[in-house]
Formats: sequence, C-alpha cells, structure tokens
Amino acid sequence: MTSSSMSSLQEPRKADMTAWLANPEKAPRPSRIADAVAIGPDGKVYDGLINLQTRSIVSWEVLDGLQPIITIEELQLVEHIVRKDPKVIEQCKISGIAEEDMDKVYCDPWTIGYDERYGSKVRLQQALMYYRPNVDDCQYQYPSTSAPSSTRPLSKAPAVNYHPEGVEKQGGFRKDLKTINITQPEGVSFKMTGRQIEWQNWKFHIGFNYREGIVLNNITFNDKGTERPIFYRLSLVEMVVPYGNPERPHQRKHAFDLGEYGAGYMTNSLTIKNAICIHEEDSGILFKHTDFRDDSVIVTRARKLIIQQIFTAANYEYAVQWIFHQDGTIQPEIKLTGILNTYAMLPGEDTNGWGTQVYPGVNAHNHQHLFCLRIDSNIDGANNTVFTTDAAQAEAPVGSAENFYGNGFYAKRTKLATVGQAKTEYDGATMRSWDLCNTNKLHPYSGKPSSYKLVSREIPGLMPKPGSLVWKRAGFARHAVYVTKYQDDQLWPAGRHVPQTSGDQDLGLLEWAANNDESIDNTNVVLWHTFGVVHFPAPEDFPVMPVEPITLLLRPRNFFTNNPVMDVPPAIASPPARWLPTPRAWPRARRQLHLCRPRERLLPG
Amino acid sequence: MTSSSMSSLQEPRKADMTAWLANPEKAPRPSRIADAVAIGPDGKVYDGLINLQTRSIVSWEVLDGLQPIITIEELQLVEHIVRKDPKVIEQCKISGIAEEDMDKVYCDPWTIGYDERYGSKVRLQQALMYYRPNVDDCQYQYPSTSAPSSTRPLSKAPAVNYHPEGVEKQGGFRKDLKTINITQPEGVSFKMTGRQIEWQNWKFHIGFNYREGIVLNNITFNDKGTERPIFYRLSLVEMVVPYGNPERPHQRKHAFDLGEYGAGYMTNSLTIKNAICIHEEDSGILFKHTDFRDDSVIVTRARKLIIQQIFTAANYEYAVQWIFHQDGTIQPEIKLTGILNTYAMLPGEDTNGWGTQVYPGVNAHNHQHLFCLRIDSNIDGANNTVFTTDAAQAEAPVGSAENFYGNGFYAKRTKLATVGQAKTEYDGATMRSWDLCNTNKLHPYSGKPSSYKLVSREIPGLMPKPGSLVWKRAGFARHAVYVTKYQDDQLWPAGRHVPQTSGDQDLGLLEWAANNDESIDNTNVVLWHTFGVVHFPAPEDFPVMPVEPITLLLRPRNFFTNNPVMDVPPAIASPPARWLPTPRAWPRARRQLHLCRPRERLLPG
Repeated sequence: MTSSSMSSLQEPRKADMTAWLANPEKAPRPSRIADAVAIGPDGKVYDGLINLQTRSIVSWEVLDGLQPIITIEELQLVEHIVRKDPKVIEQCKISGIAEEDMDKVYCDPWTIGYDERYGSKVRLQQALMYYRPNVDDCQYQYPSTSAPSSTRPLSKAPAVNYHPEGVEKQGGFRKDLKTINITQPEGVSFKMTGRQIEWQNWKFHIGFNYREGIVLNNITFNDKGTERPIFYRLSLVEMVVPYGNPERPHQRKHAFDLGEYGAGYMTNSLTIKNAICIHEEDSGILFKHTDFRDDSVIVTRARKLIIQQIFTAANYEYAVQWIFHQDGTIQPEIKLTGILNTYAMLPGEDTNGWGTQVYPGVNAHNHQHLFCLRIDSNIDGANNTVFTTDAAQAEAPVGSAENFYGNGFYAKRTKLATVGQAKTEYDGATMRSWDLCNTNKLHPYSGKPSSYKLVSREIPGLMPKPGSLVWKRAGFARHAVYVTKYQDDQLWPAGRHVPQTSGDQDLGLLEWAANNDESIDNTNVVLWHTFGVVHFPAPEDFPVMPVEPITLLLRPRNFFTNNPVMDVPPAIASPPARWLPTPRAWPRARRQLHLCRPRERLLPG
Repeated sequence: MTSSSMSSLQEPRKADMTAWLANPEKAPRPSRIADAVAIGPDGKVYDGLINLQTRSIVSWEVLDGLQPIITIEELQLVEHIVRKDPKVIEQCKISGIAEEDMDKVYCDPWTIGYDERYGSKVRLQQALMYYRPNVDDCQYQYPSTSAPSSTRPLSKAPAVNYHPEGVEKQGGFRKDLKTINITQPEGVSFKMTGRQIEWQNWKFHIGFNYREGIVLNNITFNDKGTERPIFYRLSLVEMVVPYGNPERPHQRKHAFDLGEYGAGYMTNSLTIKNAICIHEEDSGILFKHTDFRDDSVIVTRARKLIIQQIFTAANYEYAVQWIFHQDGTIQPEIKLTGILNTYAMLPGEDTNGWGTQVYPGVNAHNHQHLFCLRIDSNIDGANNTVFTTDAAQAEAPVGSAENFYGNGFYAKRTKLATVGQAKTEYDGATMRSWDLCNTNKLHPYSGKPSSYKLVSREIPGLMPKPGSLVWKRAGFARHAVYVTKYQDDQLWPAGRHVPQTSGDQDLGLLEWAANNDESIDNTNVVLWHTFGVVHFPAPEDFPVMPVEPITLLLRPRNFFTNNPVMDVPPAIASPPARWLPTPRAWPRARRQLHLCRPRERLLPG
C-alpha cells in the first residue's frame, strides 16, 4: 500500500490562465492538473502530475533525499508511538510520572528541522513532551523531559487554566461587560459568484490550498467603470519560527509552518464545512473635514472587508486576515495568539537569557515569527518595476541659497533594476517603502508611475547568525525584500519539499534569485517580503497569549485620479451655504453654530 | 483694554496632588491656581498666576520678546484684514481675481514660524491665500499667490468636490453599502464619576485643556483587588509639521500645532457641549486556542475603550484616540485626515521634487507630522527606570560549543542611567523598545522588573537638517526618546511660549535635558517620545485625504502575574472532556468533531 502524503491542484500555467481570463469564451480553459506527492511503503518519495481531464499521468518521478510535508495524521501517530516506548516510559518515571499515567503524557510532534546525525533519508520528527494531569488543562504548564540528557522532576506548581472551570476556581468570569450587538438587517454588501467575490469596487478570486491556506487571485479594482488589475496572486507562502536557545535539544527548534506542516492542513474548521470567514466591519472615520470658520463639516465612515482563516500550529495560533479597504488599500494582518512553546526548568535554574520563566517551572524560549508574503504584481498590467522610496534631506547645506532654512527634503526613489539590487533591507529612519510601479503608465497630474506602495514597519533582522542552520534553510528571511522575474512553479521560497533540508543546497528563492544580474526592470515581477516579530515571552503571555497583531499595507499611490472614496455616503455633511452668516459676524456665528446640529445626515444604505 | 490671550488651570504641584490622592480625607486639597497670559494694548505680554480660592494674584510678570499662543479669534481677524489690503487686492487682480470677488478670497492664517527680518517683538502671522469660487467648495484647489515674488495666474481647472452636490455632479453616491447596526441595548460598560472613568480594570481621570486637549491622569489598573498605578499623566504635549520645500515663501512653513495654536482650542465640537467622545468597540479576538488532537477550542472576544478628540488645524484634521485594552495595553492612535496644504503651480512647472502635483495647478508639498508624547511614569510607584531592549545575536560563533547551530539570541537590555544616555533613536533591525521599569519590584516568576514597554515603529528622523530653523526650534524631535527627571511645570517641550521663537536659545526640553550627567536611575522619570510620519502627497490624498493612522503601544510586561484577561467570558468554550473519544480513535474523532458545534457558549454580558 502507498500512503499518499499530499495531493492538490497544480497552479495553472500563467500564460494559459491570462489568455483564458482575457477571453473566457474563446480561449481554452487551462487544464486541471493534480499535483501529487506519495510516500511508498519502502519510504521512497514520488512527485507526480496527473491530468484530470485526460485521466493521464503527466509525470511521475522518484525523489532522492527529500521529505514531503508532514500531515496531521503523521503528527498524531507520533504521540501514540512515544507513549508506548519503554525508554520514554523510563524517562517519565525518572521525572515523576507513573507508568499508569502515561495517557496523561502528551507530545507535540515537531519537524526535526535538520539533524546532521540522520540526514534527510529517514523521515523524522522530534517529540516535545508535556504532562497534562487533566485533559481540559493547558498542556504547556508541565513541560516534561524531551532529552534524557536533561531530565528534570516534574513541576509541582498548581495548574493555572483559562477554561471555564479553571476561571471559576480563580474567582469566576467578570460580569461587567454589556453586550455589543452588531447586525446587518439588510444583509451583507458583498457578493460571491463561485469563488469570486465582489465588494465595493473590488473583485477577486478566493482560493485555498493545503499549504498556503487562503490565496487571492486576479485582484482588480473598478475605477469608474474600468476594471484595473492590481495583483495576479497574493498569499503567504512560507514562514519560519526560529527559537533562540542554543542549548540542546532546543537548538533544533525552528518550524517552517507552511512548508513543513501546511497552513491549509492546520486551518481550523469554523463551522461544518467552512474554513474561511468573510465579513464586513465598520472601520471608523474614512475622511473628515471641518472648516474652522463656520464649523461646516463632512464626516464619512469607513467600511472594511475581511477574508480570514485561523490555523493552529500545535501550541500556537495564527489568525490571518486579508483586509480590503474602500480606498484601494489592502492590509494583510496576522493576529498571533495561542500558547507559548515551553520547556521545563528547575526552581532557581538560570534561563541564561534564552528564555523567560513565565510560570514556576515553565521556561518559554525567545523566538521569532517570520512570514513571507508573495506578491505577484499586476499594477495596470503584468510589466511592473520595483523602486525603494526613502525620505532624504536636501543636499544643499543650511544657509545656502537653495536651502537657506535647511528644511528641504524629498522622496529619494531608487530603481531596483536587477535581482541583486532588489535584495534590500528596511530603514526606519528614512521610512523606506517599496513601490510596485507601472512605469508605462504615468499619472496625468503627478507624472509619477501608477503604483502600489508596500508600507511595512515590523521587519526585524533574522536573529540566527549568518551561516547558521536557519540562515541556510530560511534564505528568504535574509533580506526584507527579494524581487524575481515571474516563472511558473516558483511558489515556495524554502523549496517545494522543506522537511529535513540541510540548507547546504540553495533551494527555492535562493535558487531563483541566484543570478544578481538578471534584469527585473519593466517585466512581470514577483516581490517576496519577509516581516514579523521578535518575541521575548513574559508572564502575561501565559497560560494563553492575548492577541499580538502584525500588520502591513499595500496602498495605491498615483494610481487613482484623485480620492477614490468620495462616492461613499457621508454620515454627516453640513455644507455651510444653507445657513452661513456673513463673514463679518464670524465670532458670533461660531457660538451659534455650536448650538446647531448638522442640517443633513446621510447614513450609508 | 487688555485682550486676554489664554487662561487655564495651572497643573497642581505634584507633591501636593499625590499627598491629596493618597489621603483625600485628611490631606489638603491642592489649591486651584489660574494660569493666565495677557497681551496689553501696547503689545506687551504678561504671565500671571491667580489663586482662585484666595482671589489673590500669586505672580504677575511682563515678558520680553515672547509671543503667546495664537487664538482662533486672532486667526480669523487676519482674513478680514488681508481681504481689505490694497496690495493683496492688487496681487489678486494680477492672478485673475476681480476686486468684487475678494469675498471669495480666503486665507489660512499661519504662524510665521520665525522670520529673522522681524524677530519676535512684533506679533506676526503669515497668510496662505486661496480662491474659493463657492463657499461650499474645497478651499485648497485654487491656491493663490502668497508672495508678490511668485505671482501665478489662477488655475482654470474645474473644481473637484467631496460635498454632496459635488459628488452628485460626478455620478452620485454609491448605493451598495448595507447598513451595519452597532447597538448596546443594556448601555455601556464604563462608568463616569465626575471626570473619573472606570472600565473593566481601568480607572483614570480625563482632563482637557486649551493646549494639549485630552490629558489622562492617575491611570491605574485593578489587579485582582489591588489598584496599581501605571502613569501619573499621559498626553500629547507638542507636535511640529515641517514642510520640505526650501523655496520662498515655503521655507518658513513648520507649524507647532499644540504650542502655537492649541489642540484644545482647535478641537471640534461633537455636540452642543462635548468635545470628547467616549465609546466601546468590539476588538476581534482577545485570545484563542484549539487543540489539534480533538478540536477542543476556546475563543474570547476583545473589547476596547476609546477616548477621542478631533482637532482641525486649518486644512488638516487629527483624530486623537486613547485606546484602552482589557489586557492592560494602552494604545495612543492618531488618524490623519482633512485636506493637504497646497500651493499654486503653472502647467508644466517643475516641483523640483519638493512636492507633488495632486491636481492640475495644485502643488502639495512634502511634509512630516511629528508628535511628542509625554509619559509621566508611575509603574507601581513614582520611582522608575528606563531601559532599551534590543534583539541581539549570541556572541558565540556558529559551530562553537555554546552556539553550535548559531541560533542563539537574547533580549539585550541597556539601562538609560543618565539624561545623556537616554537620548536614543529607534532601531528597526533590533526591534528596539523602551521599557519603563520599576526595578524595586521584580516579577515572582520571571525575576524581571515590573514594566510597561513602549512599542513604537513609526519614528522617522527629523528631515530638516541639523542647524536648520526647525531643528533649533523643535529640539524635542532630534531624538526618538528623551528622559528627564520630573519637575513641576516641565510640560511643553518647545517652550511655554512657542510662536516666533528663534531657536537660538534652548527652550523647554532642550533646557531640561541640558545636563547629560543627571541621573534618571530609579527616580520619577518623564519619557518624551517623538513619532510620526513623512508624507509625500499623492493625488489619492486630494481633495480630501482618506484616513492614515499612526499608532503605538504601551504594553504591560512582567507586570501581571499571568494573562490578566482570562476572566473575560469566552464567546466559545468547548472543553473536550465532555465528549472526547479515546485517543486511539482520533482520526475518526476529528471527522466527527467537524460535525459538532461547540457544546457551550458564554456570551459576554
């Protein structure tokens, strides 16, 4: 028997797809190809492509020294095996767990990362062990020995829990929150046609796969009747969570949650069938102006559309939101929550600065969450160019004729003409942004290219050192931005098969961005952006972590003729003409106006 | 007759206030002292303090070469004067405005900044001129000549407007937005007692003055029955908006909106009497965890409290929100909107990179919005210490015994022991934060000091050059952070009287932070943080700008024993114990569980 590891739909060839999108009536529909990975009973790994229309095998090859993504079923097997293992039972005894309590021993199966002792021929996982006295309890407060080298007796600290029974023990739930009801009696403002959504001026296709989870395709904005392309494909394509403790066995902890487990596989089911949540939210003020002379005012409220999925990587949760704003802004936002990965520590034991004791006997290690956003750019067409913009002081010195007061500054734009030039970092002092531009389409007023600006502020460096295992395996995280020229099948920046890669060979993005001289000027560019956080745990994060959001913006600049949301009905609009007193009476008028309510109210809908 | 310029309540002496707060029954109530500034008919300026209880003058002094804050009434006077001025009428004629149309000529009166030709003895304003054919129109699309040196004919471009009549002309309002109703049938969850608000575990005093607008005092958090002090006083104390065009007359444009105009003076009236809006909002997920083994799940929704004011500085609006989260986080957020400051340009004229043509004939200049947040720290008591935290790689090289895999990293904490050491900048690569710590109170688990972490990511450098006029006058903006030792009356970082200061003398923060050797270790520290944006205008910002938010966080770290929001009722909680199948049946169980709705729903309230 063959245990299939993964089967999914191959990305349609872009040439075929764009031809079909341009003319769905006449152009042939791109063929549906299944992309399958299989593991044989002998442990051999096979990559295959199967044409679903012709029911024929397009390709079938056996791989050498590569391990495909780990499935939930494989993860769950580990716990059963570990619990029955005599050596584990013995270690548990040493740390104070009786053999009859082995059903209270849990383990989070983790990718091994890469272990030079075993290489990548044998399919491996590592098991991080915990003792959970009650099935309802937070699992991570009695971390147990994961390596015989460092056996520690189990902590005797009482359990602290966030579930209802646990909270009742600590005084119960607070009763001072009055209900907030949010309703849409007329229904929602968006429309689904198959997998295509339309909302306000937006239209795009919502896909989902085992690896990335949500994938947004063919994103367009209806600009006064013209459907303008913005992005061909937008998704999170990889992430890595390097842990900062160099002591064994922790030096090995760095999960590629997408490439090794799959954000789709790990996505929580929200209801019986749905994994994706789509909803609108009021978003506060969209724009406002008051004339100080007469208090005439316009206030327009904003609305946003949120496409959300939540996936759980063992202890940790990631709520991924794709937020669409009425003004053309797209805001990917990730809310981090869930439970810290923890390890046992003895009373008085030193963390050596690699972690924090968040609860007696519980050491939560320093770590990063680094996400790789892939932007297949399509700003008014496939041929785009990327620039950096940095705020720069005028060159002329203070007191000189050109800059007498010394206040001059400008937007310094640098074209990233080659793959090499595009390997760039963030600069907070200059508020660096990356501009995806269509240099073939200049704005009628500003004369600047139609563009979308990547505004991202949370871009820590990769903390593992150059030459380290993580640095080698997670090459995409060495720079804030890479830009490559589009090629079919260039999707996974850490490689197609990520588990147990040694990093000695350049896979994925490192391979595609190897030629620094390749031109990416005015062509179909793909921008790869790595952003995230450095997390130094604190007791506030335990036993469950309040949400920490990470956000970034894709903003239209020199894309629209002018403010694109003036047609959103204002909440308050009181043009002064109706009742403006003569200017000479202003001071009196202002007092009067404070007694006036706005003459006109237009509420949305 | 004396035209009073300002009168407000003097900040109570902190020693008196803290004594009274500690024991309101026995301790004497701090005396109420009026702080008055008056301008005599001779133009002389007087600073005075008047005791309101004893009705006696405490002090009264005449100032030399200082100009107090500009009032709305003074601003409005300018427009009347300018319209009648023959020289202005002549210039308007040259640019194509008939004398009978002078009532359609508007001017935004601006602080002069500092003009070496006139110094600070004469009270001056500069008038930025606009032609507004219709009183309802956006004023800023026909900028007119502000200096005879650069007279340009008026633009002939048609008006583009955001008011209802204007939008109807462009096709009308969109009709596809379905109503969102947000209601609190049981009322709000906060309680006001005079000016003191209580919400969830928060309690604080909400003040308001002509200059800062909202001021939050005596902020405490009820931690399981203990009211723990966090901040004594929190407010925006200054801001500066330097413009980046060095060409006359624009080199002079840099407004101190708080010190020169007053965020309180310019605050919009929301209703008849209220300038401050207080409301609750649902805030998405507060925390969540799902066990991948059985899909047992807890989801708790977040609530936030928002204290908001909006002030309008002629063309521009600032919505200032003080957001309080249940988990102890305070989030100051500023939403920028309103209208760009604009200037006339001829067809084909070059902006020289100092601005952007956002509409035909309309040049919007590069500028910054820099805000100064003042934090009078009171973390578990008045004696606090400030540290920077930077993510740092382990020193030991890759391959060494201590760091074999090269993954080690830690939180590098640096004590800012003196005023000099505390003059610090942001570093995005290390994700630098500033920690306000009480080193006298160590966390029982982590052993780290009780603290609040300043997480701020939008910290551009001051673009005007060192030695420039703005650099001299806005000294507070030279560094991301200054820390000083608390002194009564040290409130305004650009000085008490800001208009027309030359910057040749160190005023405000530069004066208070002059002694670099002064110790700020374990004492009553005040942290001054300057943050903001660099704004390179784009046509999307015209004729009215969609909101651009700037936000930062003050997060409790090692402050609470553990997660402080576990007592918030969950929206969904389904402990597995009730229905968990035996581990051996997991794969089957998972499928079943997808068909289960959570057993238990606890809705807030």
